[in-house]
Amino acid sequence: MKNAVNREIPDELLQNGRKPFMGSGYYEGTEYRKDAPSVRVREKSFETKLLPSIREAVQKCGVKDGMTVSFHHHFREGDYIINMVMKEIVALGIRDITIAASSVGAAHDPVAEYIEQGIVTGLQTSGIRGRIGEAVSHGKLKTPAVLRSHGGRVRAVERGEVHIDVAFIGAPTSDCYGNARGVGGKSDCGVLSYAMVDAKYADKVVVITDTLVDFPNFPPSIQAVDVDWVVVVDAIGDPKKIATKAARMSQDPRDLMMAEYCARVMAATPYFRDGFSFQTGVGGASLAANRFLESMLVEKNYKIKWIIGGITKPAVDLLNKGLVEMIVDAQDFDVDSVQSIRDNPRHYEISVSQYASPGNKGAFVNKLDFVILAALDVDPDFNVHGITGSDGVLRGAPGGHPDASAGAKCTIIVTPLVRGRMATICEHVVTVTTPGECVDVVVTDYGIAVNPKRQDLLASLREAGLPLKTIEELKDEAYHIAGVPDDLEFHERVVAIMEARDGTILDVVRQIKPMKL
Amino acid sequence: MKNAVNREIPDELLQNGRKPFMGSGYYEGTEYRKDAPSVRVREKSFETKLLPSIREAVQKCGVKDGMTVSFHHHFREGDYIINMVMKEIVALGIRDITIAASSVGAAHDPVAEYIEQGIVTGLQTSGIRGRIGEAVSHGKLKTPAVLRSHGGRVRAVERGEVHIDVAFIGAPTSDCYGNARGVGGKSDCGVLSYAMVDAKYADKVVVITDTLVDFPNFPPSIQAVDVDWVVVVDAIGDPKKIATKAARMSQDPRDLMMAEYCARVMAATPYFRDGFSFQTGVGGASLAANRFLESMLVEKNYKIKWIIGGITKPAVDLLNKGLVEMIVDAQDFDVDSVQSIRDNPRHYEISVSQYASPGNKGAFVNKLDFVILAALDVDPDFNVHGITGSDGVLRGAPGGHPDASAGAKCTIIVTPLVRGRMATICEHVVTVTTPGECVDVVVTDYGIAVNPKRQDLLASLREAGLPLKTIEELKDEAYHIAGVPDDLEFHERVVAIMEARDGTILDVVRQIKPMKL
Repeated sequence: MKNAVNREIPDELLQNGRKPFMGSGYYEGTEYRKDAPSVRVREKSFETKLLPSIREAVQKCGVKDGMTVSFHHHFREGDYIINMVMKEIVALGIRDITIAASSVGAAHDPVAEYIEQGIVTGLQTSGIRGRIGEAVSHGKLKTPAVLRSHGGRVRAVERGEVHIDVAFIGAPTSDCYGNARGVGGKSDCGVLSYAMVDAKYADKVVVITDTLVDFPNFPPSIQAVDVDWVVVVDAIGDPKKIATKAARMSQDPRDLMMAEYCARVMAATPYFRDGFSFQTGVGGASLAANRFLESMLVEKNYKIKWIIGGITKPAVDLLNKGLVEMIVDAQDFDVDSVQSIRDNPRHYEISVSQYASPGNKGAFVNKLDFVILAALDVDPDFNVHGITGSDGVLRGAPGGHPDASAGAKCTIIVTPLVRGRMATICEHVVTVTTPGECVDVVVTDYGIAVNPKRQDLLASLREAGLPLKTIEELKDEAYHIAGVPDDLEFHERVVAIMEARDGTILDVVRQIKPMKL
Repeated sequence: MKNAVNREIPDELLQNGRKPFMGSGYYEGTEYRKDAPSVRVREKSFETKLLPSIREAVQKCGVKDGMTVSFHHHFREGDYIINMVMKEIVALGIRDITIAASSVGAAHDPVAEYIEQGIVTGLQTSGIRGRIGEAVSHGKLKTPAVLRSHGGRVRAVERGEVHIDVAFIGAPTSDCYGNARGVGGKSDCGVLSYAMVDAKYADKVVVITDTLVDFPNFPPSIQAVDVDWVVVVDAIGDPKKIATKAARMSQDPRDLMMAEYCARVMAATPYFRDGFSFQTGVGGASLAANRFLESMLVEKNYKIKWIIGGITKPAVDLLNKGLVEMIVDAQDFDVDSVQSIRDNPRHYEISVSQYASPGNKGAFVNKLDFVILAALDVDPDFNVHGITGSDGVLRGAPGGHPDASAGAKCTIIVTPLVRGRMATICEHVVTVTTPGECVDVVVTDYGIAVNPKRQDLLASLREAGLPLKTIEELKDEAYHIAGVPDDLEFHERVVAIMEARDGTILDVVRQIKPMKL
């Protein structure tokens, strides 16, 4: 049947109470009983939690065929943990493993091999890139991968739709009892927000660190009360790929023009007032918007109350200049943000449940005024796509995009009209990752389109003299420049399910047919 | 049947898997599935959490006959919350309510009335004083009260033996979304450690504050993701009774002598080394031990790694003097400790699960080197009693005593041999609250007794030249001075169950017979 974003969802997926996407906020006000872990009690102090190797931790946790193991992606492309753990699981002859990661990427290319061998048979993730994406797109994974937003992943864990048997948590520092922190050590990643959730819901929790520190390691991101075992290894990641140098602010005139449009859109809305809240993605134009915002804040004598999200240097700069009161942090992307959370008491770590889960009593995204985010494609219903490349292969991440979009009072999508000779405003997006009803404004280098359901914003932006177009006008312009693309060809078989943040099915990804040259 | 501390436990209480006390650590290594709350989802931002009155919060939460409501005691004798909430529950005609409080006292005398009226029919608490204690002792509560240690209370919540329908959490500050803190406001109590647990396990959570602050109130003790409603009232407590002035260090020569013994006992053990960990109760001699400890630390050039527990000025002084690396805080008893957690970044708030629960994967008490605690009576098996007065009426608190005693490597009980013409070392304690197997040393003003199971400590203390006696010698001496007391007279009926921290039955309290004059 067709869901609320007009996507055909195969009936065989709509079983066991699983619903097609019904529109945002469908479960608002409903009740459910939260999932809970099975806990092995330590009421005395006899036993050490330190184990000599990851293999021994895998054995002590009783990992066996059919289990679900979880990982976080705070080490990004520098992560060593997934490969180290999976190597031991494979060496022990364990099969039929589901990986529940907050994201996987090129750092985990060896896992593609385990997928092809039928050892890894399930994948649940909020980002997928590299050889794993290719393997899934070509139908190598035994079951459809499940793709979720960051908040949606937490919701699935909180509701028990994903029950984690063992969470393996790489931690920059830990003490012998498992109090673990995101800051410090050789592989400093700033926060452990994704892992904070896994630690509370997984039956078994293993902390893996390369920097063992004195008990108690305080204040902890991961609490000892939730940790079964601690393993010390030589290196948990490649620091150079964990916290990279700050992205140089874009000098591309097209980016700067779009960035200025974004800032002007914000300033034209009634939400632009002293004490607003704000999130930006990490795209060039999104980041550049901070620069234009800064002068507008100074001019009006406004301060931002809080910035949330994945954090980068521009946010840290605003904090240090006193233009932001506090940063509420669920992921660090560069050295500046890692340093800031370590040193600045107005920069706070939160769990991804606090950040974005639609399965609790109210996450931060619900209180957002503005978010600026990128897109791969946008269709005339404002549906956004951000998960497959132009060849139809999985290499993207819904990430926090659907969560912040659903929560913010003003959601701005910024994208060039044409990217690499492809129209980005187009008739059909490959996969819907954020439903159009959550998108308010689309900013391009050829003009700005406002979602017709936001007539209030349309009036404000018109009054501010911004270059407005309809989304259809932008689409026609894009096709005029880039031509109408050939449709990608797919097999019938569903290789991935794109869940809406509330757990309904937003779209499916089908097995790609090899491109004809 | 008789349990492991030789107490007769009525068979009718040993039902539904409930066991008599079997000895400490009986459940070590066993597994159970944690309890979980039923959650009402807020995935959008429409609805405010602010309600105009406690009555409306009671109604919105659907409080009805037979429910369990919970409270914390961080406001101690200055608490207004329990009375304000119970008044509304009673006014709405709701009956058969169980109060699950971390402690109740004279501040809650009106509740005794509700017990007599059969409106409050159950009581679960870690401390009981005032008219409520009298009502329970005289058999007015419909079901036996359940008395637990602080850690045992959390364990019961974590295991679902106590399922909280609605937690009413008084908070010194809160924002409109329920991010609540123990510090700040008009009724500053420093930490919300007891409430942190209730917020995670209760189906409905109401934050009641007299100081509403801007969103987000960070870093929060209670997270908005767990909070359903926020109510602002004029006053949540009487500040003068919440954080009292620091207790003046005892000048009583008997207290000072015992305090010095305690410090010398510590120094004589192998655990007295650089970086040990430490907890003291709030009795005069326990607190005075800090003074003697200080000079020993300076002399040896030792530092305490961490102090935990209910915190008072002596611990804060050691922190400020650099003799303690950090304070890990689950309750504040005076203005100094409240100030310290607000201002000193080496002073950390923890939940009572982290502090003391025997139902998680390892609490702080498991890592304790030393604890110094008081007692009302001690018997020749070193069993400690601390819950009823010499007239048999409930007016005490097991508190964290059984938890710290079970965890610490060296548990020191300090008590004068005779108190108010009563022998404190005696043949039979009224109620066992901490099992003797967890007690290592008893310090009195007439000498020091070591538990025979700790021959290692006996040898160390003998070598240090401390005035050692057997516990029987101390008992005989006490009887010689004070005479053998008449036994208290009780009815058969059990009015309270004293649970061991692991949930087994340690002892029972029976209905008191009025004293004959």
